[in-house]
Amino acid sequence: MPSSATERAIGIDVGGTKLLGVLVDIEAPDRPLAEGRVPTPSGADAIVDAIAAMADELDPGGLAPLGVGLPGLVDHDHRFRYGPNLPDVEDLALGDRLADRSGRPVVVDNDATCATVAEFRFGAGAGYADGMLLTIGTGIGGGLVVDGAVRRGASGFAGEPGHMVVDPSGPRCPCGRRGCWERFASGSGLGRLGREAALAGRFDAAVDLAGDPEAVRGEHVVAAARAGDEQAGTVLDEFAWWLALGIGNLVDVLDPSIVVLGGGVMDAADLLTHRVVAALPDQVLGADHRPTVPVVAAQAGEHAGAVGAALIAALPDGEVSGAGGGPAPR
Amino acid sequence: MPSSATERAIGIDVGGTKLLGVLVDIEAPDRPLAEGRVPTPSGADAIVDAIAAMADELDPGGLAPLGVGLPGLVDHDHRFRYGPNLPDVEDLALGDRLADRSGRPVVVDNDATCATVAEFRFGAGAGYADGMLLTIGTGIGGGLVVDGAVRRGASGFAGEPGHMVVDPSGPRCPCGRRGCWERFASGSGLGRLGREAALAGRFDAAVDLAGDPEAVRGEHVVAAARAGDEQAGTVLDEFAWWLALGIGNLVDVLDPSIVVLGGGVMDAADLLTHRVVAALPDQVLGADHRPTVPVVAAQAGEHAGAVGAALIAALPDGEVSGAGGGPAPR
Repeated sequence: MPSSATERAIGIDVGGTKLLGVLVDIEAPDRPLAEGRVPTPSGADAIVDAIAAMADELDPGGLAPLGVGLPGLVDHDHRFRYGPNLPDVEDLALGDRLADRSGRPVVVDNDATCATVAEFRFGAGAGYADGMLLTIGTGIGGGLVVDGAVRRGASGFAGEPGHMVVDPSGPRCPCGRRGCWERFASGSGLGRLGREAALAGRFDAAVDLAGDPEAVRGEHVVAAARAGDEQAGTVLDEFAWWLALGIGNLVDVLDPSIVVLGGGVMDAADLLTHRVVAALPDQVLGADHRPTVPVVAAQAGEHAGAVGAALIAALPDGEVSGAGGGPAPR
Repeated sequence: MPSSATERAIGIDVGGTKLLGVLVDIEAPDRPLAEGRVPTPSGADAIVDAIAAMADELDPGGLAPLGVGLPGLVDHDHRFRYGPNLPDVEDLALGDRLADRSGRPVVVDNDATCATVAEFRFGAGAGYADGMLLTIGTGIGGGLVVDGAVRRGASGFAGEPGHMVVDPSGPRCPCGRRGCWERFASGSGLGRLGREAALAGRFDAAVDLAGDPEAVRGEHVVAAARAGDEQAGTVLDEFAWWLALGIGNLVDVLDPSIVVLGGGVMDAADLLTHRVVAALPDQVLGADHRPTVPVVAAQAGEHAGAVGAALIAALPDGEVSGAGGGPAPR
């Protein structure tokens, strides 16, 4: 039993565009008691203020523990080091600052790791001892479950598969390299594949929707596919091939028993999941000689990152099933 | 304490070209008591015979436990499923057959996983709780240590980083895909880079050594570099860049605290290690914001795979430090 188990906890997921917060009963984390949402402000001080204010709104006058998820490298001391999708924040001692400010126990973790805790506790990964969550959004985040526990690596930075280089002559990535997986297989990658098709005259429907080939984005590809456009289907096939390529790399390295796909792009799960499943066997070593790895859509919902952050804060000793091993709170 | 701990164990490493066997005292596994070596015969039955014969030669009349390492996918039931470098063997119930034949407790595992046990028990990885061994030979094998234990994945197949696709338009791999990492960063990859340079007129010394640009192999690159040839240094720089690319991918995903490089190509560690170390920071996400991951040459020696197999056989309950979690023996 954890010494510091509490009934309620706050989780706040800091995204590139918005802060999403929840107050949860840790016995029923899939049904938040309260929610909050504000645009992500600019700069470290403003982000600290916004998190602290949201925590007090969700739990006025209380001292419920607070978990925060951020997109990027977060170390075991609850310090946000770096993330290309949160460019104006670096080396921020967020755990210390929030704990001093609020008096609450605070944990800070990678956002996809937080979502992994939620997915493997009550979502699509529940009951699996080895698996991955991949969050397909602006970039690609990831969380690893190995031998029954979420694994964070030596410094807390494990699970950044979006920056695997899969084509060294590919497009430049904000991280400084070329051909990172998320250049192809994220929401921005889908937009790029759509633009390339549009500029090559192979995607008229997207040009109609966007007004200009250069303006084609991922949502235009999805909208055209929903309207039954065949060229959109071809772009989605290409996108799914790139997704499967990276998933295959991860299966070769980690041998998971399930791969869960979440993130905003998976709002189009009905168009994407079956395509990825079909493309994966050709991308896995010895596919004929091993079990097929299920690839499924996330089920813990839009709040998965926030809820997972709350669970990590409430259960620091690690008894979230399939999600142990977290650092002690600040 | 393990219930089945024994003083002595046999380990046999089945390579594409040779079987290498040892008898070890498990309290001093780095100094084998006896060794054996025979060419790898062709076909499953002949391999079973050769392993059984070598075990009896190493431990005549005894019942010391036997561990066997093989290059490819080995499941938790000690069955060899598939490996591109052992092409005439597939879906072989090696553990069952050897146990029936010899009466010994038998474990069968992936060869690089075996070597990982040795390296993290008494070699270059000793004392590290998170790390990887990469064996750079004809292909690239791998073993993972995460949170203090060797991890084998859901089916036993984790740690095949050689088949991460890093260039989908790259050369065809025997596994069926294109541009697998080991097409560039293994011994055969080094030969290919050398041939490309020779055929382009950029590597005269190798042509002199090999007699023909088409005949250039990895050892010619190494020999020319040892003789001080500058063009050989350029080829080695390119090779190290590809090695660092894949290591960077693995660091992004796993966040190890050390990367150990073994395998035959690392006989040229003096030429390679510093080049990989120099190339790695540009290949890791947020290198300026995290500890530098040490990349070091393996120290457990040529017998690491065989010795590790013996350790897994002798200590099936998993108390090899940094190497727990193995399956029970057949």
